[in-house]
Amino acid sequence: MDATALWQRYQKWLYFHEGLGFFLDVSRMRFDDAFVEKLQPKFEKAFADMAELEKGAIANPDENRMVGHYWLRNPDLAPTPELTQEIVSTIEQIDVFAEKVHTGAIHPPKAPRFTDIISIGIGGSALGPQFVAEALASDFPPLAIHFIDNSDPTGIDRVLTQVRNRLTSTLVLVISKSGGTPEPRNGMAEVKKVYAGHNLDFANYAIAITMPGSKLDEQAKSEGWLARFPMFDWVGGRTSELSAVGLLPGALQGIDIRAMLEGAKEMDDATRIQDLKNNPAALLALSWYYAGNGKGEKDMVVLPYKDSLFLFSRYLQQLVMESLGKEKDLNGNIVHQGIAVYGNKGSTDQHAYVQQLREGVPNFFATLIEVLEDRQNPSPEIEPGITSGDYLSGFLQGTREALYEKHRDSVTVTIPQVNSRTVGALIALYERAVGLYASLININAYHQPGVEAGKKAAAEILELQKKVVAVLQEEKTPLTLEQISQKVSATDKIESIYMILRHLHANSRGVVLEGNIGQPNSLKFCIGG
Amino acid sequence: MDATALWQRYQKWLYFHEGLGFFLDVSRMRFDDAFVEKLQPKFEKAFADMAELEKGAIANPDENRMVGHYWLRNPDLAPTPELTQEIVSTIEQIDVFAEKVHTGAIHPPKAPRFTDIISIGIGGSALGPQFVAEALASDFPPLAIHFIDNSDPTGIDRVLTQVRNRLTSTLVLVISKSGGTPEPRNGMAEVKKVYAGHNLDFANYAIAITMPGSKLDEQAKSEGWLARFPMFDWVGGRTSELSAVGLLPGALQGIDIRAMLEGAKEMDDATRIQDLKNNPAALLALSWYYAGNGKGEKDMVVLPYKDSLFLFSRYLQQLVMESLGKEKDLNGNIVHQGIAVYGNKGSTDQHAYVQQLREGVPNFFATLIEVLEDRQNPSPEIEPGITSGDYLSGFLQGTREALYEKHRDSVTVTIPQVNSRTVGALIALYERAVGLYASLININAYHQPGVEAGKKAAAEILELQKKVVAVLQEEKTPLTLEQISQKVSATDKIESIYMILRHLHANSRGVVLEGNIGQPNSLKFCIGG
Repeated sequence: MDATALWQRYQKWLYFHEGLGFFLDVSRMRFDDAFVEKLQPKFEKAFADMAELEKGAIANPDENRMVGHYWLRNPDLAPTPELTQEIVSTIEQIDVFAEKVHTGAIHPPKAPRFTDIISIGIGGSALGPQFVAEALASDFPPLAIHFIDNSDPTGIDRVLTQVRNRLTSTLVLVISKSGGTPEPRNGMAEVKKVYAGHNLDFANYAIAITMPGSKLDEQAKSEGWLARFPMFDWVGGRTSELSAVGLLPGALQGIDIRAMLEGAKEMDDATRIQDLKNNPAALLALSWYYAGNGKGEKDMVVLPYKDSLFLFSRYLQQLVMESLGKEKDLNGNIVHQGIAVYGNKGSTDQHAYVQQLREGVPNFFATLIEVLEDRQNPSPEIEPGITSGDYLSGFLQGTREALYEKHRDSVTVTIPQVNSRTVGALIALYERAVGLYASLININAYHQPGVEAGKKAAAEILELQKKVVAVLQEEKTPLTLEQISQKVSATDKIESIYMILRHLHANSRGVVLEGNIGQPNSLKFCIGG
Repeated sequence: MDATALWQRYQKWLYFHEGLGFFLDVSRMRFDDAFVEKLQPKFEKAFADMAELEKGAIANPDENRMVGHYWLRNPDLAPTPELTQEIVSTIEQIDVFAEKVHTGAIHPPKAPRFTDIISIGIGGSALGPQFVAEALASDFPPLAIHFIDNSDPTGIDRVLTQVRNRLTSTLVLVISKSGGTPEPRNGMAEVKKVYAGHNLDFANYAIAITMPGSKLDEQAKSEGWLARFPMFDWVGGRTSELSAVGLLPGALQGIDIRAMLEGAKEMDDATRIQDLKNNPAALLALSWYYAGNGKGEKDMVVLPYKDSLFLFSRYLQQLVMESLGKEKDLNGNIVHQGIAVYGNKGSTDQHAYVQQLREGVPNFFATLIEVLEDRQNPSPEIEPGITSGDYLSGFLQGTREALYEKHRDSVTVTIPQVNSRTVGALIALYERAVGLYASLININAYHQPGVEAGKKAAAEILELQKKVVAVLQEEKTPLTLEQISQKVSATDKIESIYMILRHLHANSRGVVLEGNIGQPNSLKFCIGG
């Protein structure tokens, strides 16, 4: 396509939202009019599905659940007055609570103010709050946030070391929808022990964000925790950033959560329009469908040209992959859908892998995110007339151009600055794009059946560990792996038993071994004194 | 494959390095003996190529360069006594310099000790130091490190804000092989201005790590910077972590760089063995080749089950993608090679996208990284007999199992703990695996011709910006985009001109516009008072 035609195409497809100062350019995705025409009926269905979902239809049929994350920023849309009220009052409670923490009206027993937050959660209970903290928290937030988002002992230790001098003024948020996810439960258990070790009553520092009635909720209630905030049954983890999950840590850090909600609402309004060309989420879904042939044949590489949006790609990785990565479609056909997402930030990543993007396997399309404002204050000139921000802008344009030359497609998202409204809008944009794309490919974007298998397998490993340890505790003489496997009636699990014992042995848990640890069949194990 | 056969396969392929306590399991990659047999001749050639490379052959033919990163940890291998001496003495200089900084023998003009480091570098001059800092720096390092790895004005501001109270005791490392890369040059220019603004002589705080004779080296020499350390022509950015690029920031942070080098040397020795089954790097290369059919058809998902190894996947992303992502093979054939790499950490990522990995597009293989030691001190029990570390181990095993059940392959790397030796060994392992795999597919792993195009395109954008501004400064009346494009003789660049002006307008650079910014053809621009 020559420069003139390309410029016409750019103008034809350029989407602009004046209220948000938001632009979307899909002109460098090389679909033609026939392709768009062909997808039109699918989009009509997708728009209709979305309208039903917003009205409270059961959009997650497997789990018989409504899907209501759009109501969070426009409570009047919720299908019943009770739900509307619940949403409104939760936001108010969050505002009031954060305000009291900031003024010191709510304060720890031994200090005038809370200074820090340890936020314990994983997946949807971590990625949103982490992304938003990085993007929006000021350099001097009223409370500094630290995340425990894993069951890694040294990771937990590191966070506890960071706050060691301020433990008496550190709030602990425990975020878990079901309240039964092991990682946050483990993190909470370890943190609680440390508070107890310092003679601090954990309840005075702890806040639960969970579904009313969950195990975590019951514990928080019975132990008299500082506060409890609800997670709603109809909000999935990966779309929970604008529920208490994201709003409470946001508000505590001094982030303008009302503006986040407002930005999301404005984007929701814009992406509710049932007209492909005037709906930026539909334009994204169209681009994804085109890139991957509706089958995820191309990875989505996300490059925000702004350090503070660094975690947006990880946030999208979860939102997109967990929503779209499905074995079956809604009719039960095996489809193995999904779109792989990765990326960090530009121009940094240009020095990491644009080499491959431009020349290597053509298995991706790029999403470039541009932020128009370089910084709030004027920039010094690096050379006459040119600032570091001009360079950043030049790198984005240069990469977009260099990819296009080599027939690598890209989408460019442009926002005026990184602020609460635009971040809320970006979240809403991608939530809607995922929902629409899921309709195009006829899958349920709101469940995650594949996650259970790994959890179940992990639970079996822990059960096996208990049995293995019990057997070794009873035995006097060292046993081979085969002997152990027979005694625990799991001869098909020798490999797991080996891995379990190797791990226990490395952690001074009493397991003694003879033989060469690199040659499993040479080994004998016992429990030593 | 039934459990017994799988256990036999596990034992048959299990690689163990006793000195390093390192394990590699490739048994869950489903290659068969015939496949291994078929690749044998390719491996013989790869081993021979590697031996030549280590002896100083020109292994990067386009750039007519030797490839010497293996010499960094075994200087006796270098092809001349002068090179050996250069390597040895650089490491000694780093040790001595870091020691003097720690004791205060070298100190800033207005403080007894340096307290912080701002490390300015991008790509290979950032990812290694960032990964190692995260993995190995203690919670209380003698100097705290902060990275500027982009040309983002707000990113630079954030780092400067972090050290605002300690600027008088903050060292600045400027890391740039050629000394001409714009991002670090921009970062340096801005940081230098801030030092000057505080009446601090930048030269007293600045250290250059660059090729002797580069522009940066000349500047450092003429301005009398605190120190200069060499980057070698024969070490590429992405394999420079064990040169001054990584060793100086490591040593300053109190990391045992000698142990890193020693670990790398031990792994180099192990991966020099010309026997596929007894060479862990060859086993990795075999696995990659099998997974992607020698064409990168599968992405490599890297999941270290340890928070402190979080950045290893990003480090590998550069090492693998920039090395292998090539348009042409060594014979000039168009091949579009590469392997896409992404991942963050387990078990966190299980809650982000294992849904897709298990059920969705089968376009990847996984690398699980296991760390046997949970933490240095004993762990509390979360439930009887079970610790948070047991859970982490269980999640790794569970995911490996859940993926295998669904015919998703994985490699498992096991190290005893995250320490200087094992980190050095991991770096060396993957450097060698990349080198061997490049031989298997007959490409040059040591150049990056595709990176230039984006840089050149970016430079053209900046030139265009200067011309556009010059035209608007001369004109009295507002001009349309088309008129501007004619005046700068770039009618094929209207789109770029629009993007340039939109960016300048957003940054109060004097550009005034009339019309609707979302409708380019409605716009007129001038330079305002």
